[in-house]
Amino acid sequence: MKNTFGSSISLTIFGESHGRAIGAVLDGMAPGVPVDEEFIAKQMDLRRASGRISTARHEADKVNILSGVFNGMTTGTPITMMIENQDQHSRDYGELAYKARPGHADMTAQMKYHGFQDFRGGGHFSGRITAGIVAAGAVAITALKMKGIRIGTHILTCGGILDRSFENYDEDIIKLEDAAFAVLDDGVRQPMIERIEKAASEGDSVGGRLETAVIGLPAGVGEPWFDTLESVLAHILFSIPAVKGVEFGDGFALADMTGSSANDPFRSSDGKIVTATNHNGGILGGISSGMPIIIRTAVKPTPSIYKQQDTVDIKTGKETKLVIQGRHDPAIIHRARIVADSAAALALCDQLALRFGTDYFAPCEKG
Amino acid sequence: MKNTFGSSISLTIFGESHGRAIGAVLDGMAPGVPVDEEFIAKQMDLRRASGRISTARHEADKVNILSGVFNGMTTGTPITMMIENQDQHSRDYGELAYKARPGHADMTAQMKYHGFQDFRGGGHFSGRITAGIVAAGAVAITALKMKGIRIGTHILTCGGILDRSFENYDEDIIKLEDAAFAVLDDGVRQPMIERIEKAASEGDSVGGRLETAVIGLPAGVGEPWFDTLESVLAHILFSIPAVKGVEFGDGFALADMTGSSANDPFRSSDGKIVTATNHNGGILGGISSGMPIIIRTAVKPTPSIYKQQDTVDIKTGKETKLVIQGRHDPAIIHRARIVADSAAALALCDQLALRFGTDYFAPCEKG
Amino acid sequence: MKNTFGSSISLTIFGESHGRAIGAVLDGMAPGVPVDEEFIAKQMDLRRASGRISTARHEADKVNILSGVFNGMTTGTPITMMIENQDQHSRDYGELAYKARPGHADMTAQMKYHGFQDFRGGGHFSGRITAGIVAAGAVAITALKMKGIRIGTHILTCGGILDRSFENYDEDIIKLEDAAFAVLDDGVRQPMIERIEKAASEGDSVGGRLETAVIGLPAGVGEPWFDTLESVLAHILFSIPAVKGVEFGDGFALADMTGSSANDPFRSSDGKIVTATNHNGGILGGISSGMPIIIRTAVKPTPSIYKQQDTVDIKTGKETKLVIQGRHDPAIIHRARIVADSAAALALCDQLALRFGTDYFAPCEKG
Amino acid sequence: MKNTFGSSISLTIFGESHGRAIGAVLDGMAPGVPVDEEFIAKQMDLRRASGRISTARHEADKVNILSGVFNGMTTGTPITMMIENQDQHSRDYGELAYKARPGHADMTAQMKYHGFQDFRGGGHFSGRITAGIVAAGAVAITALKMKGIRIGTHILTCGGILDRSFENYDEDIIKLEDAAFAVLDDGVRQPMIERIEKAASEGDSVGGRLETAVIGLPAGVGEPWFDTLESVLAHILFSIPAVKGVEFGDGFALADMTGSSANDPFRSSDGKIVTATNHNGGILGGISSGMPIIIRTAVKPTPSIYKQQDTVDIKTGKETKLVIQGRHDPAIIHRARIVADSAAALALCDQLALRFGTDYFAPCEKG
Repeated sequence: MKNTFGSSISLTIFGESHGRAIGAVLDGMAPGVPVDEEFIAKQMDLRRASGRISTARHEADKVNILSGVFNGMTTGTPITMMIENQDQHSRDYGELAYKARPGHADMTAQMKYHGFQDFRGGGHFSGRITAGIVAAGAVAITALKMKGIRIGTHILTCGGILDRSFENYDEDIIKLEDAAFAVLDDGVRQPMIERIEKAASEGDSVGGRLETAVIGLPAGVGEPWFDTLESVLAHILFSIPAVKGVEFGDGFALADMTGSSANDPFRSSDGKIVTATNHNGGILGGISSGMPIIIRTAVKPTPSIYKQQDTVDIKTGKETKLVIQGRHDPAIIHRARIVADSAAALALCDQLALRFGTDYFAPCEKG
Repeated sequence: MKNTFGSSISLTIFGESHGRAIGAVLDGMAPGVPVDEEFIAKQMDLRRASGRISTARHEADKVNILSGVFNGMTTGTPITMMIENQDQHSRDYGELAYKARPGHADMTAQMKYHGFQDFRGGGHFSGRITAGIVAAGAVAITALKMKGIRIGTHILTCGGILDRSFENYDEDIIKLEDAAFAVLDDGVRQPMIERIEKAASEGDSVGGRLETAVIGLPAGVGEPWFDTLESVLAHILFSIPAVKGVEFGDGFALADMTGSSANDPFRSSDGKIVTATNHNGGILGGISSGMPIIIRTAVKPTPSIYKQQDTVDIKTGKETKLVIQGRHDPAIIHRARIVADSAAALALCDQLALRFGTDYFAPCEKG
Repeated sequence: MKNTFGSSISLTIFGESHGRAIGAVLDGMAPGVPVDEEFIAKQMDLRRASGRISTARHEADKVNILSGVFNGMTTGTPITMMIENQDQHSRDYGELAYKARPGHADMTAQMKYHGFQDFRGGGHFSGRITAGIVAAGAVAITALKMKGIRIGTHILTCGGILDRSFENYDEDIIKLEDAAFAVLDDGVRQPMIERIEKAASEGDSVGGRLETAVIGLPAGVGEPWFDTLESVLAHILFSIPAVKGVEFGDGFALADMTGSSANDPFRSSDGKIVTATNHNGGILGGISSGMPIIIRTAVKPTPSIYKQQDTVDIKTGKETKLVIQGRHDPAIIHRARIVADSAAALALCDQLALRFGTDYFAPCEKG
Repeated sequence: MKNTFGSSISLTIFGESHGRAIGAVLDGMAPGVPVDEEFIAKQMDLRRASGRISTARHEADKVNILSGVFNGMTTGTPITMMIENQDQHSRDYGELAYKARPGHADMTAQMKYHGFQDFRGGGHFSGRITAGIVAAGAVAITALKMKGIRIGTHILTCGGILDRSFENYDEDIIKLEDAAFAVLDDGVRQPMIERIEKAASEGDSVGGRLETAVIGLPAGVGEPWFDTLESVLAHILFSIPAVKGVEFGDGFALADMTGSSANDPFRSSDGKIVTATNHNGGILGGISSGMPIIIRTAVKPTPSIYKQQDTVDIKTGKETKLVIQGRHDPAIIHRARIVADSAAALALCDQLALRFGTDYFAPCEKG
């Protein structure tokens, strides 16, 4: 289905960058999960970012909960979260109406929607639409926390500069929670930001890689063959604009290893079976092993750049030149990380509810 | 859904390595598509492989078509393809019944199936189950060919040795069709095979990377946000055992590029909009652009190795040592490539039928 | 999936009777379908009804389109329609919070949502939630009209009084379009209304049967075995509160006929195969034959009555007496008919898009 | 999806009446459910029936289990059940190849499959394909029994003769289990059979109504709005050939009742909330109440009759006469009842697994 993801717990997103509102409907979440509007607002802020390396679009991204929450808790029925668009500046995009921006969805949207699409600011293909994922993801992250499952994503690389990987999962995930520019090694933050600013000063942009860890996920989750944990996580992650690669555990590096170095030996620990290493990223045969889930995601550089580009007018089919005006991010990697967290959390909630039932996240009965 | 993939055209796979039969049900394929049993047999042979670098399991993998084919053509109803298991050698696996093989699904299957799973030879998690994907994929590949869409996968790397990438798509894809060990540069075949043999002689195994190209796919296919072309392709590819990474276009390398180098400029060519480069691998905003689709897949080294490994007995929970007996592949990369072709073909057929209707692959009416 | 129906064209509904807003997300509708807000408003009015036989809830049910419509036409992306709740009178329902109303979902909602559900006015189980179906259904009805497919529902019986059946489909469907109390024989309207008023005066309520006709549907639509046209239509119709029976063609009466009287002989007419009679209601083997689709739906009497009833307090489990206060309809059959039209239209749009592709309802390219 | 039903526990059916084999894949059933081949064989016999009022097709309908069962129990992976076609007599149907049989799917199959369908004996639309539903349903019925949930269907009417309704559910359901011609009042069996024989002697056929009861289903099952218990049960029941009506509780009769007579008052009984009456058939708001589920299904008379009928040649489009040769049932109502049981059981298993998780039907761990 197009704009709906998930089976037991599902997310439907809607909206266009310059339309009236964007948002999401989260359906199937168990009743009794607390909905903390402050936490949602904090997550929205992390996505929106700001400062020199982010666009200045001054929208509060206030999440209006229209349904599914009663007395501060989920009711078990669809949770609709709406974010009104306030600051639209449609005219900035005037020139872009028919000049397909390279690296964007303008041309392919034309092939699919035949000119009826809302082209303003990328319309439904704008990165802004990820706000709905983050709003719904905040509820998912809360639900996971109630079950002792925690998730965190950091900027593993940005513009070629490398952060350290996870070491102490508990501490590292806590460290990432409120970080506007989420790195594990504080020493790489400034170099990364400077790299982004350099790209900005050149009218260019940079990309990066995200690394996500999930701890506390029970063993035995995942529905092979076709709904392996890797399959469903990759499915939702590849829905995030700019994501062009997803790998689990050592991922592509595993391809160059030998079996004897790639295999994770089993051990017994406190009555549980664990692995001595985690090259497989907590997933074997598509099913969780109880070890930390490790995901890495490639985010391409923001396609909106200020340099002049060759393009085609999708109305006339004629070749032309394009210079993009308006505000654009020289990097989105620091904003994308909260989207990756949210998307992964939503997919995991769905898998857990499928596995353990629709009451999995429900607290004891209200009585 | 667990063992079913797809919506308009769906595949259901079944079977255990040492059970009575394995197979697949392909549902939703348009009526009138020719079913060439010789082509199916050829594809099965490519998956089965043989020789020193593959297991000696002497099964013909004869595909029995039980339904959905009439007078050599699809009827439009479910196509059931059954492959009987003949050569089972259950006793080879006796010691493995309770010793979880590192890198395999034995331990996670226990967590999910509580000891009721058929553990013999990996059961439902055996790579043998991919035979159903290949059998159904052969029909999908034929259907795509009827619409001018062609697909080919080569071994981009094996044990660290690099093949060249696609140059002339048409010629390269033809070259790959019947190749038992599919590389584009004939000069790398022997070194790769030697690398595999070296691993075998050390009781070890190697992995590799696959690169898949799809040409002729119309622009405008893909259902963002959540069923982007990348999402659905990655979903099915991550269902193949041993796949731990998937990337599109320049994939992870894009993360290190700048926007000005990563963007593909648009050009006009014979009335169609094309891109001068193809860093995005034929997909923009999750929708096909009409350029070649480029997919790379990381395949981990075969987890079955002959070296002694540390493990745990899943019945007693006690730590123990494991030495795997029996026949095992020191590499599966050359066999996996036909599985990747087949899986991608199935996902594309589904997307095309969703986009253009259930008669998309049907020829003119029979009359 | 819970609150989402459909595959290629899907509907997600949300909201609670006394929450902030209710509404729907319609996803997958082709681009270029006109969205006529006046027509939507008219449909909403038909559902809301008014006068002595309907509740006096003075809400305009103004539909706010938040996304998916641009320049008065669908864009092809999710169409979100929100209706704010203005007139909530929560206190009317105070006594009902824990006394399960017989015939309502209060008790079963408690079993499923453990006391976290929004109980006010039936919450998510209120008939008011059908407003989202009607709003989205208005777009579906417009899309069907563009393809020459028309739909109409009349009150076949109400409180035991019988309307005539369809005679001239074209004229009859037109006649029903704007009817606040939709009957085909004008002579039965007043008796039916009087029957309802009599029930109202006795603190009681009545039910009825709806009959729906669909004309212009192409032959060959329906996806047997499990997505027969009957299956998908019944699926959505049984989602409408108070619907307890659905039949097609002569339905239950067919069970008492012989084969020779029930079979519809085939004839040739203007190069098309038609049937001389239509006992099967335009569906054979789960697939449309091109003849009018005939559906009949049983609507139980409104469970909210003013007579004292025996019930149980769901909090204490103790038996008690209940006298429902507030405004309630002595009949909903005249309001339900536009919901049945809308629901059937949505299911048919989905089936047509699956069959003929996502552009089926798109006009010629915008150019 | 076409030939797959269900989400957590799903059924895929395949085959043609005169093809090589028919069967089903049951996926998602929990591990550890006993698979009793004798019980399956008994259910198959009840569907196949025999004697004067049933066709003489001498096939044992032997179910071959190809996968998913190990040591007599489900493994949790897909269970494939294949029934080979042995007695095909294709030539009997020669004349029917292009003459559309009234009341059958021949004409609509032509509209959908364009002449590529296997027309022999109705092909994929033959009632014979229900054998796969019965085979898989036997496993579902066993799983339900393990949880104290039991199901039974009787012939409520046949050719206008009426059986009594359920009185003592436990005893009545046991009584139905092995009945070849399942009625509750033994006195109506002979009159019904004589009515069928009379139709047969006239070259005609009769239909009937089935009544199904389900007891022991926990309260709180069903996923409103769109997956109400009525919606999913009706969905699968309307997939059974010849079913043209489905109702729950008092169904269509409710439409003629008043609210005060239709509402089921709540009572407290042994700490559970029950209803004093059961007009709503155990379902309120689409969710189970814990009371018996009551379903009635209308089965049209067998369309295959020996009387000459008017029809059209689907190849030439010309009007012609048809006299059906070969063996045909003058009634299928006694065979359909086991299909209704099986279909309802499968839908309920799916709903229960969605509600309570994929291990719902699993026994204690094997250890």
